[in-house]
Amino acid sequence: MAEFKLHCFAQSGNAYKSALMLACCEADWEAVWIDFFNGQTRKAEWRDTVNEMGEAPVLEHGGKKLTQSGVINAYLSKHFKKLGAENDDEELEVLRWTLFDNHKLSGVLGPYRFLNVLMPTAPDPAVMNFLKGRLDAAFAVLEVQLGRQPFVALDRPTIADLSCAGYVFYPADELNFDFKADYPNISAWMDRLKELPGWKPPYEMMPGEIFRAQR
Amino acid sequence: MAEFKLHCFAQSGNAYKSALMLACCEADWEAVWIDFFNGQTRKAEWRDTVNEMGEAPVLEHGGKKLTQSGVINAYLSKHFKKLGAENDDEELEVLRWTLFDNHKLSGVLGPYRFLNVLMPTAPDPAVMNFLKGRLDAAFAVLEVQLGRQPFVALDRPTIADLSCAGYVFYPADELNFDFKADYPNISAWMDRLKELPGWKPPYEMMPGEIFRAQR
Repeated sequence: MAEFKLHCFAQSGNAYKSALMLACCEADWEAVWIDFFNGQTRKAEWRDTVNEMGEAPVLEHGGKKLTQSGVINAYLSKHFKKLGAENDDEELEVLRWTLFDNHKLSGVLGPYRFLNVLMPTAPDPAVMNFLKGRLDAAFAVLEVQLGRQPFVALDRPTIADLSCAGYVFYPADELNFDFKADYPNISAWMDRLKELPGWKPPYEMMPGEIFRAQR
Repeated sequence: MAEFKLHCFAQSGNAYKSALMLACCEADWEAVWIDFFNGQTRKAEWRDTVNEMGEAPVLEHGGKKLTQSGVINAYLSKHFKKLGAENDDEELEVLRWTLFDNHKLSGVLGPYRFLNVLMPTAPDPAVMNFLKGRLDAAFAVLEVQLGRQPFVALDRPTIADLSCAGYVFYPADELNFDFKADYPNISAWMDRLKELPGWKPPYEMMPGEIFRAQR
């Protein structure tokens, strides 16, 4: 049995953040597939025994069950002494960009992509426009930051990069963003992340097939 | 001159999280009003010299400039040894609920309220319904958690409570939620937070007047 178990599914960008972390740390880990699309994480049993937030991913390690990718990655970073901060100022900076990601980037891009390709009914254009406007603003902030330094929080990769990268490696038609054309700094940063030992795109990292909702 | 300066404005729930923290820590602090509605935080000068994320609040202390309420409050919690974690497990739990708040609660309630009462044009009902659905789900999670324990992350108040409480103390017509009727555990938790020494509602804590967009 592997030392770390990550409950996840390939379509979850939040799960991808932690799967990528486990891979980058060369952890002894296995993926346990979550049947998200049949509602596994929203059922009472999951909420009562695994995660009251009703979300993926969940990490099991040494009797602990951790949820929220940001928590899992902070834990793994300390455990493996990888991709973390080395002093208090760095720790605040890593936290700052992880919070920015949760608030403005993944917290919006996740639902945007979900409505775009995974929901059985076509999304309302007003909702998509609203979310797109917020994403344009968030990507503009990230683009400026990545023009100043090679990685999001520090001059080396950290868990803040994995957080901001949760959704950007999904197929282009899921996201409707052309990073290469519109965000050259983000695009170059993505290329740098691909060099991390252990990096793979989400659908190769976790169980689950690419699919599109039939409408 | 006060030891701590918080750049803030009364309408910002994210700024309120840090103003409340400073008050609860009995810090020597002063509020510096941000002219948000005339675009101060979105101007190039603000982005270049104060906060590249284009957001409030910003804390100045001892030559440092900190942004993101979650970062500011983690810093203050360590500085004053108040409302923080006492061991690694507690620290992860405080972080977990702070991330949940950024992702699912304040990250959605902030824009919802902004569209509801602060934008010059009336919001699209489809957008409001979308955000309301996400908020109902987030408040349901919080309601269950606060039925199990008196505070969000631990059995005592922490900065995770201040995070989740960023927007809930604004006037009811700004939020369109009736916590007393629909979320009795959240309502009881709000009453407990009001007992914190230094607690005041947002419009009494920070400079700025209550207003409603004229439509």
